[in-house]
Amino acid sequence: MHVTLVHISIKPDCRAEFLEATRINHEASVEESGNRRFDVLSDPEDATRFVLYEWYDTPDDAVSHKKTGHFETWRDTVAPMMAADRELEVLRGIYPIW
Amino acid sequence: MHVTLVHISIKPDCRAEFLEATRINHEASVEESGNRRFDVLSDPEDATRFVLYEWYDTPDDAVSHKKTGHFETWRDTVAPMMAADRELEVLRGIYPIW
Repeated sequence: MHVTLVHISIKPDCRAEFLEATRINHEASVEESGNRRFDVLSDPEDATRFVLYEWYDTPDDAVSHKKTGHFETWRDTVAPMMAADRELEVLRGIYPIW
Repeated sequence: MHVTLVHISIKPDCRAEFLEATRINHEASVEESGNRRFDVLSDPEDATRFVLYEWYDTPDDAVSHKKTGHFETWRDTVAPMMAADRELEVLRGIYPIW
């Protein structure tokens, strides 16, 4: 029930590379223990803005995500594409009950 | 791939009634055609703030949601509990691909 919205702003002309790196991270993250959602969303009015919607059973599961190889690869791959620091919004998942 | 984040602010002392009405709406909404997510989230630092995370296959599916009996019942039940107008943020779902 540990949910994080990650607000991302990328530099122009990075969209295809960002989405490819993020697709790979998404596909590995949904296989993690404790992961319930790892959705990738875009702003239809601004091609440089994205949101990751991540639901983990516990805060520890979310911490473990940041120790995985696929997260580290994603983080390092997209680092030069970032237009600003990522902003995290932490929420508590109530429904569904898993 | 039509995603909406609904930001909700309720009056104090409405939390239990709001959550019960929203649970019923959640359980019916996830059975709708085209629905992929209807998650209910709360702000851990402010008991009066909630977010609904709704993913529908198409914008028409989201429009149809607002014509259902369970949505209308929820809307009318929670109307007196609202501390402010609900704020909608529309996004496009990219991953997962359904």
